[in-house]
Amino acid sequence: MLTKIIEPRFGDTDGLRHINNTVVPSWFEEARNPLYRIFMPDLTFEKWRLILAHVETDFLSEMRYGRDVEIRSWVERVGTTSFTVHQEAWQNGARRACGKTVVVHYDFEACKSIPIPDDLRARLSEHLLESPPDR
Amino acid sequence: MLTKIIEPRFGDTDGLRHINNTVVPSWFEEARNPLYRIFMPDLTFEKWRLILAHVETDFLSEMRYGRDVEIRSWVERVGTTSFTVHQEAWQNGARRACGKTVVVHYDFEACKSIPIPDDLRARLSEHLLESPPDR
Amino acid sequence: MLTKIIEPRFGDTDGLRHINNTVVPSWFEEARNPLYRIFMPDLTFEKWRLILAHVETDFLSEMRYGRDVEIRSWVERVGTTSFTVHQEAWQNGARRACGKTVVVHYDFEACKSIPIPDDLRARLSEHLLESPPDR
Amino acid sequence: MLTKIIEPRFGDTDGLRHINNTVVPSWFEEARNPLYRIFMPDLTFEKWRLILAHVETDFLSEMRYGRDVEIRSWVERVGTTSFTVHQEAWQNGARRACGKTVVVHYDFEACKSIPIPDDLRARLSEHLLESPPDR
Repeated sequence: MLTKIIEPRFGDTDGLRHINNTVVPSWFEEARNPLYRIFMPDLTFEKWRLILAHVETDFLSEMRYGRDVEIRSWVERVGTTSFTVHQEAWQNGARRACGKTVVVHYDFEACKSIPIPDDLRARLSEHLLESPPDR
Repeated sequence: MLTKIIEPRFGDTDGLRHINNTVVPSWFEEARNPLYRIFMPDLTFEKWRLILAHVETDFLSEMRYGRDVEIRSWVERVGTTSFTVHQEAWQNGARRACGKTVVVHYDFEACKSIPIPDDLRARLSEHLLESPPDR
Repeated sequence: MLTKIIEPRFGDTDGLRHINNTVVPSWFEEARNPLYRIFMPDLTFEKWRLILAHVETDFLSEMRYGRDVEIRSWVERVGTTSFTVHQEAWQNGARRACGKTVVVHYDFEACKSIPIPDDLRARLSEHLLESPPDR
Repeated sequence: MLTKIIEPRFGDTDGLRHINNTVVPSWFEEARNPLYRIFMPDLTFEKWRLILAHVETDFLSEMRYGRDVEIRSWVERVGTTSFTVHQEAWQNGARRACGKTVVVHYDFEACKSIPIPDDLRARLSEHLLESPPDR
């Protein structure tokens, strides 16, 4: 399981005085950096080969400014041309949000999805969790 | 069907030179303002009674900077204490992204969902579409 | 003077229940699109030749969610290789924020600023205002 | 001097394949959290007493996705009712952006600035630097 600590910013809140819903996908995006590095070790755009097909987030309870948030990420599925990342945001010992992202291995010149090579599939699979860790 | 024209900002793009995935939920949020006004006509926070439970977005094809985007929104379901909004982003005559948002009628002091009153349910239902409009 | 109407988004607010300071530069960025089109008519990145050197914003009074904001923009100075844009955000008949952006005409391959051609200088100058319009 | 490490997010970039200008003020905002805690130790909004009057940023050279950024912050001036924070963003050993923020001690009920109490002034002054640290 990958973990990343996020320190909320003042502007991450909204008028309800909690973290705004649109911020959480950005936190999850930051926490996916290690998975992106499997495909592009230096994260340069010239050789970028991933594109998002689907993002979903469930908001379980409110998060607040002033306390760190831990993002937990793991791979839930590795398919032929795409994989699914499961992510959770924890604050004050409780799971506050969880989400899934479907990432497609993609050839931007040919405009089509392409199979994930075996060596990268093996490295992705190191982050596979069939069921979430004990809570 | 509610429509809203969005003019992309330079910073809405990312290094892949298309609109970044995290931007689309913000566009959809802006386009839900008329639905929020059914509950809070002047959109003030003191009386706010809505909270998001779920947001999901499918990215169908890339959107670009330099051309307007039309957001189309309608209500897909009105439940006892929540409703679901379906939204689409169109650019250059093609549907580029679509999403669903589950909005809960919520009492922030009691910290629990509350039934949607009949008069508001009736006004929400004016935006109900059982199937999407002809494409 | 260029004008652009912005409809604030729920997430543009922060816990103080006003528009967050980091949002205003994004609004100003959107309102500079017509000036960017003078240089790149279709706003494509392949031929992009502008880069920002300086952005500043004065926050004069609070802006709120629920009311449109008008962004007023004009060119304040056209130099040899750069120009300065003055911008203001108005809400409910009052000037709420104003800012300046220094935009440099830039060759990204040579990594250096380059003179603004005369024809583009002329078109920029159509948006020059020596003093702000009457208030 | 306060330091804070930022890991850039994919969406922090724009079509020029560098960090977008509107992102840097958000990074600086996050790095001001320790200064805000001097006034509101638990960062709750109910007792918030600070408001921004001015934000400016100079962009010295491009920042990229894929490498950490260090934000360096110090107090440059402590006035009667306001203080100025100087901040810098460093990446790959070079100073890439610097900025100033004028923060006003503010009574939101009376809608006016109020003097900074002596004890808080003393704590702010611990972060005063007359000249930037050696580079």
